[in-house]
Amino acid sequence: MDAGAKEQRDPAWWGRRAWSLLSAVRARAPLVQCITNLVSMDIAANALLAAGASPAMVHSLREVPDFTPRCDAVYVNVGTLSEDWLPSMRAAASTGRPWVLDPVAAAASGFRMEACLELLALRPAVVRGNASEILALADRSVPASSNFKGADSSHESVDALEAAKALALSSGTVVAVSGAVDFITNGEQVVGASNGVSMMQKITATGCAVTALIAAFVAVEPSDALVAAACALAIFGQAGEIGMVIKGACLSQDAPH
Amino acid sequence: MDAGAKEQRDPAWWGRRAWSLLSAVRARAPLVQCITNLVSMDIAANALLAAGASPAMVHSLREVPDFTPRCDAVYVNVGTLSEDWLPSMRAAASTGRPWVLDPVAAAASGFRMEACLELLALRPAVVRGNASEILALADRSVPASSNFKGADSSHESVDALEAAKALALSSGTVVAVSGAVDFITNGEQVVGASNGVSMMQKITATGCAVTALIAAFVAVEPSDALVAAACALAIFGQAGEIGMVIKGACLSQDAPH
Amino acid sequence: MDAGAKEQRDPAWWGRRAWSLLSAVRARAPLVQCITNLVSMDIAANALLAAGASPAMVHSLREVPDFTPRCDAVYVNVGTLSEDWLPSMRAAASTGRPWVLDPVAAAASGFRMEACLELLALRPAVVRGNASEILALADRSVPASSNFKGADSSHESVDALEAAKALALSSGTVVAVSGAVDFITNGEQVVGASNGVSMMQKITATGCAVTALIAAFVAVEPSDALVAAACALAIFGQAGEIGMVIKGACLSQDAPH
Repeated sequence: MDAGAKEQRDPAWWGRRAWSLLSAVRARAPLVQCITNLVSMDIAANALLAAGASPAMVHSLREVPDFTPRCDAVYVNVGTLSEDWLPSMRAAASTGRPWVLDPVAAAASGFRMEACLELLALRPAVVRGNASEILALADRSVPASSNFKGADSSHESVDALEAAKALALSSGTVVAVSGAVDFITNGEQVVGASNGVSMMQKITATGCAVTALIAAFVAVEPSDALVAAACALAIFGQAGEIGMVIKGACLSQDAPH
Repeated sequence: MDAGAKEQRDPAWWGRRAWSLLSAVRARAPLVQCITNLVSMDIAANALLAAGASPAMVHSLREVPDFTPRCDAVYVNVGTLSEDWLPSMRAAASTGRPWVLDPVAAAASGFRMEACLELLALRPAVVRGNASEILALADRSVPASSNFKGADSSHESVDALEAAKALALSSGTVVAVSGAVDFITNGEQVVGASNGVSMMQKITATGCAVTALIAAFVAVEPSDALVAAACALAIFGQAGEIGMVIKGACLSQDAPH
Repeated sequence: MDAGAKEQRDPAWWGRRAWSLLSAVRARAPLVQCITNLVSMDIAANALLAAGASPAMVHSLREVPDFTPRCDAVYVNVGTLSEDWLPSMRAAASTGRPWVLDPVAAAASGFRMEACLELLALRPAVVRGNASEILALADRSVPASSNFKGADSSHESVDALEAAKALALSSGTVVAVSGAVDFITNGEQVVGASNGVSMMQKITATGCAVTALIAAFVAVEPSDALVAAACALAIFGQAGEIGMVIKGACLSQDAPH
């Protein structure tokens, strides 16, 4: 652990780990069951396909017993939660496969907060949310905040760092807070990743897509969810940076003169 | 009213109003709850994000009491209507928040027509549809038409202008008929907007997306839904025009020689 | 039949047929009801719109009696199957309209396999799947395979050719196996189409989209589903080839130097 912690202070170590995990996803094509929201299934599927994983958007409770045990990881996202989908989420999270939770807009309602807390008790390997979501989860309450922004964050990720550590310790999971800087913590160790571009917050479902990618990374590195989550977030952010450069080049060429 | 009506004959007045409302959306980032169809949630979310609003695709009946009152506007779209979603639509439309209705393919079935008429009775601020949808709604009937085109219109917007005025008067709402020319009316005043490009009809969910944008504009201008709807339609159409110019520039550069 | 079979050995005959069917879709704009998965409704809708058809994503059982008889074809896709959608699929497949089945991930669970077999008994005009899906359907069983890949194929299309022929004969339908080479068979005749690019397998819902296109082609050529399916697959593949050329041209121009 100590030796590991020392190694991890070397940025080059992270570069090698991220590359090695992405290569493992490409080589093994892990099957990732996604019980996710109605907004972004195609986006999450394409993020998984682009990384080399095999997505499976399967949400019927009837299919969990046959299907989930054959998966390498499970991704649960409550973005468009409803009562009829919650039992499938619970069941898939209870099969013993490593799984990842995206508590979208956890504070939107009492119903949603309870569902998130109930899922959290089923021990996801990683919870990935924005600062507002992690603060609400750690506080276990629906704030009466007047600047509630739905699925968008009204806090910086650093504001949720202490809450993330507390939540990680109390729930025994890795907690990732995404934002301009992403923080990933198991309650003791904290890793920061500052990849990505701010435009990604202006595109729906980038959060949902990166949590799907975390599930693929956890599938190939189930024994170290902290490293898997941090590497997935860094690589997703870098993909955004590359996309921004290409977009910039396109727009400068294509703009009518 | 008279002074206002005179002002509004000046095109520059509309330009200023449209810019001012878009600026207000960007500044206030209104939270817009969307209970919309399964085809186009990402597209509506991205249209709202691009305009500076904060979309929330929340459809569970369980969440309406906690969530809807915190929203600045509600957007209801019946594109993929089913019996289990209708109660949420009704509930969200009844919370007193300003709301907007998109009666997609209103004439597809008796079930859908009844649902649209029932929602209409809950007094949306704006109803936005294509000519065929508005004609069917005004007629309160499912035509046995042999050239029914599902969600696509088989009429020009001008064909539905009188129906739109009658519908606006009878239901006490603003009615917007989109098409090559968009008409927006409260039953007395009629505003026309001729922005947009015909290719937008060849892309799914452009209608759904513009109705989402109308909801965001109504959120920042709830006291004048006619102006809000007209400005949203004009700006959405202009975005299409800009997109077409950029696409044209790309294709002329990128086509293999 | 013999004369037809001879004609069909001439590649130019297929080019003329494909162009003629695409032109018929553009001219008649057939209304295609899609009861499809939650991942790819927009993608299927856009594929249909691009081809000139009129898509209608209508899935409520309540709407089938009014709506389905007015459609020119029906498209059923079990990608995100659930118990509450299956009755609509059954009902729409039983109205006598020509219909097409996409048995996505047929082997994912016993529930899904049974649903697919039950739908198959309702005599679709065409079943389009990848090799793994067609092999599983022909075998009527959920394999305990360790290399199950969800919606992705773990077999080459040619591996499923005999299974496709047997399935076509036993179920009285045309079976299309898509892959690097697409095979289309009625159990006696086999047609191959080798259009498309491998990147299409790395984009979610290209399979779903091409099955939607097959439904549009069957709508305008219901009396020869073999030809309709083969032409739709060829044209979809060619669209992918054109897209790849344009993308290649863009990337070579736009890459930062």
